[in-house]
Amino acid sequence: MVFSSRNQTLLSKIATNDQHGENSPYFDGWKAYDLDPFHPTENPNGVIQMGLAENQLSPDLIQKWIAKNPKASICTKDGADSFKDIANFQDYHGLYDFRKAIADFMGRVRGNRVKFDPDRIVMGGGATGASESLMFCLADRDDGFLVPTPYYPAFDRDLRWRTGAQIVPIICKSSNDFQITQEALESAYENAIEANIKVKGLIIANPSNPLGTTMDKETLKTLLRFINEKKIHLVCDEIYAATVFDTPDFISISEVLQEMEHDPTVLINPELVHIIYSLSKDMGLPGFRVGILYSYNDGVVSSARKMSSFGLISSQTQHFLASLLSDEAFVEDFLTENSRRLSKRHKVFTQGLEQDGITCLPSNAGLFVWMDLRRLLKEPTFDEEMVLWRLIINDVKLNVSPGSSFHCEEAGWFRVCFANMDDLTVEIALERIHAFVRKGKENEVMAMKNKKNKVWQKNLRLSFSSRILYDEKTLMSPMSPHSPFPQSPLVQAKT
Amino acid sequence: MVFSSRNQTLLSKIATNDQHGENSPYFDGWKAYDLDPFHPTENPNGVIQMGLAENQLSPDLIQKWIAKNPKASICTKDGADSFKDIANFQDYHGLYDFRKAIADFMGRVRGNRVKFDPDRIVMGGGATGASESLMFCLADRDDGFLVPTPYYPAFDRDLRWRTGAQIVPIICKSSNDFQITQEALESAYENAIEANIKVKGLIIANPSNPLGTTMDKETLKTLLRFINEKKIHLVCDEIYAATVFDTPDFISISEVLQEMEHDPTVLINPELVHIIYSLSKDMGLPGFRVGILYSYNDGVVSSARKMSSFGLISSQTQHFLASLLSDEAFVEDFLTENSRRLSKRHKVFTQGLEQDGITCLPSNAGLFVWMDLRRLLKEPTFDEEMVLWRLIINDVKLNVSPGSSFHCEEAGWFRVCFANMDDLTVEIALERIHAFVRKGKENEVMAMKNKKNKVWQKNLRLSFSSRILYDEKTLMSPMSPHSPFPQSPLVQAKT
Repeated sequence: MVFSSRNQTLLSKIATNDQHGENSPYFDGWKAYDLDPFHPTENPNGVIQMGLAENQLSPDLIQKWIAKNPKASICTKDGADSFKDIANFQDYHGLYDFRKAIADFMGRVRGNRVKFDPDRIVMGGGATGASESLMFCLADRDDGFLVPTPYYPAFDRDLRWRTGAQIVPIICKSSNDFQITQEALESAYENAIEANIKVKGLIIANPSNPLGTTMDKETLKTLLRFINEKKIHLVCDEIYAATVFDTPDFISISEVLQEMEHDPTVLINPELVHIIYSLSKDMGLPGFRVGILYSYNDGVVSSARKMSSFGLISSQTQHFLASLLSDEAFVEDFLTENSRRLSKRHKVFTQGLEQDGITCLPSNAGLFVWMDLRRLLKEPTFDEEMVLWRLIINDVKLNVSPGSSFHCEEAGWFRVCFANMDDLTVEIALERIHAFVRKGKENEVMAMKNKKNKVWQKNLRLSFSSRILYDEKTLMSPMSPHSPFPQSPLVQAKT
Repeated sequence: MVFSSRNQTLLSKIATNDQHGENSPYFDGWKAYDLDPFHPTENPNGVIQMGLAENQLSPDLIQKWIAKNPKASICTKDGADSFKDIANFQDYHGLYDFRKAIADFMGRVRGNRVKFDPDRIVMGGGATGASESLMFCLADRDDGFLVPTPYYPAFDRDLRWRTGAQIVPIICKSSNDFQITQEALESAYENAIEANIKVKGLIIANPSNPLGTTMDKETLKTLLRFINEKKIHLVCDEIYAATVFDTPDFISISEVLQEMEHDPTVLINPELVHIIYSLSKDMGLPGFRVGILYSYNDGVVSSARKMSSFGLISSQTQHFLASLLSDEAFVEDFLTENSRRLSKRHKVFTQGLEQDGITCLPSNAGLFVWMDLRRLLKEPTFDEEMVLWRLIINDVKLNVSPGSSFHCEEAGWFRVCFANMDDLTVEIALERIHAFVRKGKENEVMAMKNKKNKVWQKNLRLSFSSRILYDEKTLMSPMSPHSPFPQSPLVQAKT
C-alpha cells in the first residue's frame, strides 16, 4: 500500500487510542498459542490453549437433538418451508418464540424460582454487544462504573472503549476469597468522587469470571441496598448462570430483587437493575452470538432495543434456538449432563494440580479455576508474575492468563480454563505442570545442596531469556493467513 | 412498575435524546401497517406494506439449493459433524471460507472487473452495524459527513446516534434527476465550514436508496477527486450492487479507484475509501444480519475488526453462506434470475402507474421507485406532502414513504417499494392507486363543472380529517403483543 501514513489524523480518537485493552498479556497468550498450537499428533509439543473460556464438553448432546429435529433449521429439506419468512425477519424485538424460549430458559436456569418476561428480552451481538448497548443507555462519556477486581479483561473493550465510560475498581483481596465487602464498595465510591468521576453504576459478574465463584444472598442484598441508596445502576453479568457444577446453588439478582419486594425496611427501585445474559457459556454456543439484555427499566428496554439494530441475532439462529430451547426435556437433560461433565472435569483438573501442591480458589462455577502460584514468585510483584507467566507459556507451553490482565491487585494468580479441550489434552497439560513442578523441586534440592538458594529462580529466568522474542508486527497484522479455526489471539469476541 | 420516574437523569443523553430518528413519518407508516396489515383473504382492506425495501422475489431459488445441499448447515443430520467446531467459532476475522466467498461474490457482482481481498472483509451486524463501526473509526463526536439528499432515513440512527457525528446535507434536485454536482458538493462543504463543523468525509449510496439509480463513472471520479483534494473519507454504501435490473450497469467505486491508479494527473489516496456491503438486499437475507465493511485503509480494517466483536455474524450463518456463495453455478443462476424477476416487477409496477399518469424517476436498480406526486400537492410544501401521505396511508391504504423522511428538499416525492410482496398484492395496490386517481379526476371534473377548482383538494382533506387519530402510546410501546412476523414499524433493523 502506497499511503501508510497520516492515519493518526485521518481516523478517530477511538480508532487510534488503545482503550480496547487488547494489548494486555491476556491477548498476548493467545498469540503465543496461535503461533504454535498444540495438536495431539501433528504438534504434540505445541502450546495448549488454557486461556479460552469455552465449554466444549457437551456439543454432542445438541448434535443428537439436531438429528431428531430436522424442522428446527430453515436450512434443511424439512425446515426450508419457513425459509422465506425467517430469512426476511429483521424485527428488532426478535422472533416471539425465541424471546419466549430464552425467557423460560433463564427461569429454568434459576430453578424456576423467578420468571422472566419475554417483552423485556433485548437482543445484542453476544454479551459483548449487549453490555456495550447497556452502557450507551446508562452512561455519558466519562461517567464511572464500579467493578470489583479481578474482572474479565475485555470489560475494558465492552464497557469503555466506544462509550467513553470509565471503570473504577473495587479492590477485592485473597484474604476473604476476593469477596466484595461493604468497605471496599464505599472506598471505591469515595475514590471516584475524589477523582471527580460521576458514578453511574456498579457492575458485577455472578458467577465470577475469573474466580469461578457465586455470590451469596447476603452479598447481593448488600449490593442492592448500596446502589439503591446511591441511586446508581446495578448491572449483573450472569452469563455463567447455568455453568454451576457444585454447591452452593447460583442465586440470581432477580431472585433477590423479588424477595426484597416484601422487605418492609427498604424499598428497592427495580428500574436500577439490569441483567446481561448469553448462550455462549451455558450452552457452549459462542459462535451463535446470542447476547441478551434483560432490564427492569422500561426506558432501557426501549432504547436498547433500538440499539439492538447494531447487533441483532441472525434470524436463522433465533429460529433454531427457539425450537431447541422450547424442548423442555432436552433442556433438562442438557443442563444436568453438562453440569455433571463440568464437575468431573473440574475435579480431575484441580485434583491433578493438588497432587503437585498447587491450590486454586475454591470454586463451584465457570469454565476455569483461579490458580494460586504466589509461592512461585521471587517477589510479590507483577513484574515477577510476568516472568513466571512467560515461563509457563514458553517452557511449560500452556497458555494461561495472568491475574494482572484481570486487574487483580495481588500478584501470583492465574486463570486456567479447563473445559475447552478433551480429556487427553487435560492429561497432557497436567503432565506438563507435573514435570515443571518436579523440575523446580529438583532445582530447589540442588540449590539447598549447593547452598545457593536462588538457583531455581535464576534458571527459570535464563530459560526464559534465551527464547526468541515474538515478532509483534507479524502477530498484530490482521492480514496474516491463518487456519479456518484459529481460536485466535486478538480475535476472540468473548471469553 | 412502581418507579416510572426519573429516567431522564438515570439514563444517558443518548438514551433520552431522539437522535435515532425513529420519530419520522417513515416509521409512522409502518405503525399504520402494523395496526391493520393487508392479507388477501383475512384482511383484504388492510394497509399494503410498500415501505419495506425487501426482496422477496427469489427465496425459492435458495430453498431449492438447500434441499440439494444438506451438508451446508450444521443443523442437519448430514452437516452436524461440523457442529462443535462451528458453534464454538468466535474469531472476529470470521471463517476464512466465509470471507473468501463474500470477497468473490462482491467481485462477481461487479462483473469480475475488480478483485476483493478476503483479508479486508470486516464483519458487522448488518450494514447498520458495519456503518456505525466505520463512523466510530473515522469520526470524533461532532465531526461532519456530507450526505447527498434524499438519503436513507435510518442513516440518522446508523451514522449519528451513538457516534455523535453530524450529517451535512448535499442538496440534490429533481432538475437534474437528483444527481450530485460539483457545485452542490462544494456548497455543502462550505456550509459545514461556516457552521464550524470539521468535515471528515462524504457518504454516498450507490445504487441510491431511495432513488433507485446508479452513479456514472464521471460522477464517481468527481467524488474521488473531491475527497482526495479535501483529504476526507469517501464511504460508499453499495448494498444494492446486485439489485440492478436494467442498463446502465452498476459501477463500483472500487473499479473507478482501480482505473484511476493509472491516471497520471491525480494520485488518489486509497486509504480514504471504504465500502459498506450486505446480503440483506442482494440475496434477500435481511434476517441473517450480514454486514460487511471493506476498507482500503489498514488502520480501519484493524480497528473495525476489533469493533466487529459487537456485531459478529452468527457462525451458523457464516458457515451456511460460505457453502451457498461458493457454489458458482448457483450464484450465477441466482443473480441472473433475481435480476430478471426484479426487472419484470419494476416494469409491471411502473407501467401500472403510468396508466394512471403517475411517473417515477427513471431507475435501473433498488427495490423501490421514487414516485413523483408533486402535481397532487395543493402547494409545494412539506405540510401538503404530509396531507397527501396521510391520505395515501389512510384512504388508499398503501404504506409508502414521504420524501421528507429521506430529507428530500422538494416536496411531493414518495418512495414506493415493489419487491416485498407477491404478484397479487402488487395488482391490488395498482387497483387502489387507479381508483384513487379516478376518484380524483371525477372530483376535478365535478369541480370544473361547478367552477369550484379546489373541491378535490378539500374533499381529500375532509376525508383525512374525519379519520381517527392513531393512539401513539399503544404504537410506541415495546411491550405490545404482536405476531411472530410483524414486518414491524419501529422495529426494522434496515430497509
